[in-house]
Amino acid sequence: MSRCGEQSFYFEKAPVIAANTSMVGPKEAQGPLAEWFDILLEDDLLNQKSWEAAETEMQRVICKKAMQEALGGEDAQAFLGGDLNAQIIATGFAARALKLPFIGLYGACSTFIEGLILGSALISSGYLDNAIAVASSHFCTAERQFRFPLELGTQRTPSAHWTATAAGCALLTRTGDGIRVRSGTLGRIVDKAIKDANHMGAAMAPAVCACLMAHLEDMDAEPEHYDLIVTGDLGWIGRNILIELLSREGMSIDEERLIDCGASLYYKEQDTHAGGSGCGCIAAVGCGYIMKRMQLGDFKRVLLIGSGAMLSPTSTLQAESIPGIAYAVELEA
Amino acid sequence: MSRCGEQSFYFEKAPVIAANTSMVGPKEAQGPLAEWFDILLEDDLLNQKSWEAAETEMQRVICKKAMQEALGGEDAQAFLGGDLNAQIIATGFAARALKLPFIGLYGACSTFIEGLILGSALISSGYLDNAIAVASSHFCTAERQFRFPLELGTQRTPSAHWTATAAGCALLTRTGDGIRVRSGTLGRIVDKAIKDANHMGAAMAPAVCACLMAHLEDMDAEPEHYDLIVTGDLGWIGRNILIELLSREGMSIDEERLIDCGASLYYKEQDTHAGGSGCGCIAAVGCGYIMKRMQLGDFKRVLLIGSGAMLSPTSTLQAESIPGIAYAVELEA
Repeated sequence: MSRCGEQSFYFEKAPVIAANTSMVGPKEAQGPLAEWFDILLEDDLLNQKSWEAAETEMQRVICKKAMQEALGGEDAQAFLGGDLNAQIIATGFAARALKLPFIGLYGACSTFIEGLILGSALISSGYLDNAIAVASSHFCTAERQFRFPLELGTQRTPSAHWTATAAGCALLTRTGDGIRVRSGTLGRIVDKAIKDANHMGAAMAPAVCACLMAHLEDMDAEPEHYDLIVTGDLGWIGRNILIELLSREGMSIDEERLIDCGASLYYKEQDTHAGGSGCGCIAAVGCGYIMKRMQLGDFKRVLLIGSGAMLSPTSTLQAESIPGIAYAVELEA
Repeated sequence: MSRCGEQSFYFEKAPVIAANTSMVGPKEAQGPLAEWFDILLEDDLLNQKSWEAAETEMQRVICKKAMQEALGGEDAQAFLGGDLNAQIIATGFAARALKLPFIGLYGACSTFIEGLILGSALISSGYLDNAIAVASSHFCTAERQFRFPLELGTQRTPSAHWTATAAGCALLTRTGDGIRVRSGTLGRIVDKAIKDANHMGAAMAPAVCACLMAHLEDMDAEPEHYDLIVTGDLGWIGRNILIELLSREGMSIDEERLIDCGASLYYKEQDTHAGGSGCGCIAAVGCGYIMKRMQLGDFKRVLLIGSGAMLSPTSTLQAESIPGIAYAVELEA
């Protein structure tokens, strides 16, 4: 049986991450993790006519690179992906460019981990030999969709996140050597009535807490089982909230082992306030910094938890609260 | 091996549709298929404050009804769904209300079939014992998002579709009796450079043609293998385009056996122009009319093909063409 507990899948035949590729924008390329990404952009338009088209191009390039590395340039059997744009158009157009069988996903900033879980399940059970999981975000597409036109130069609140211009792609295969996806945990929506769209860390931290607790219970594991627990984009504020929520659940966690991608992507001097966010944040940091350090032997077992804030411009205008969702995957080197 | 050909999955342990529930709005309740839906609305607001909240409520109610019928009111193990709203908020809020492990999908109007395929794969391979696949659309949420504020009373072009106020839910289980999901085919994006967002049938028909051809090739089947081939929301115009595209591929298809949900949902006098569309169109007609007639013994083997137009308000403004996607599932009674 590959079902574990209430929310988790255990992959007996654990899929292999045969290629992990990433690309980041100019601001992220000046951050502390720059050396770990495959492609650093000097221009966030990538010679395209719009930022949306640039985001599509980011996905296309890193997927092509991953297929080159892992499959000698052959097509992958499926493309699982999503992004923050309404109707996930950046991904839809990337799927058009890549001409691969397409599974469109939306889990806000958790989308990459959602794709890793589904791709792993389809491979582990024999439906696919390989699959791509991809996600992207772009500061300029997100800012004008969720907040204000960039041209206004609107002042940002201290708890606001900076949507990362970033994309990450993992090409999963049934056979081969490399990092394996050992298990995955589906999330449930958790909504603690946060209504401030500039306070994403607070909206998502309770869902991360719930997903982590569910994962540990389903897998009968302790936090120490993992060399690293990596969250997606809680930022500085959300990370502190998570630590407090976990302690209220009676769980103390070694803070050295708890890394948040959004809180790690920029130097404080880069003035991103709460830290990075966006679908591309955990996708790029996961496929770049985390997986590459695993490949160097620095970490053996890592739990990657992606979290998403399920809001839209419409739900914000309607004064709805912000439901949070989180998914987890266990990687082993 | 459960992989078939290039794009298809064959479910040896075919999941059962243990409950199929549907709900439609007031206009659809006056159409020719009204008697086949479970719940007919007199008011498309469902006592909510917004149409978006009403769409969420539609999903919640039919999912609860399905869990009541198939699981005695117990929770399903996963909720796979999506809708047309930006960031699939109607579904996100339904997942919050239902508190189920959530897999958010976006395949535009093909989302319901995408969910059936993924849910069936996860059940057939033992990751889940049961799962809900759901999708919805609402005329008023879609119209103001993709086209014009309703209050303007803008005149519609003759090739325009009418987004159905409709939702459908299939509760899949590993064991039991009923309609089975025998196979599924993933689609690839097909884009024939249609740029008119009021000509969805033309944008989607090539993807439906490609998906149908891929399915038949992967399963080594002829169209006559199916008592019925059901498309989602090509409408009158798209249906004719599909028939022509198929004939160019050398495939003649018995038009009596080819039903389009969008072209069947309204009487011509209801003035919907090209016919119905929206994620809820094939979801409600599939779970209502199609599955109920299968349960009556009228059809034994049905191919359901959902199609989506992967556009967004932004991509339309940017003069992008409209990529089409289609997914197919084979149902057997």
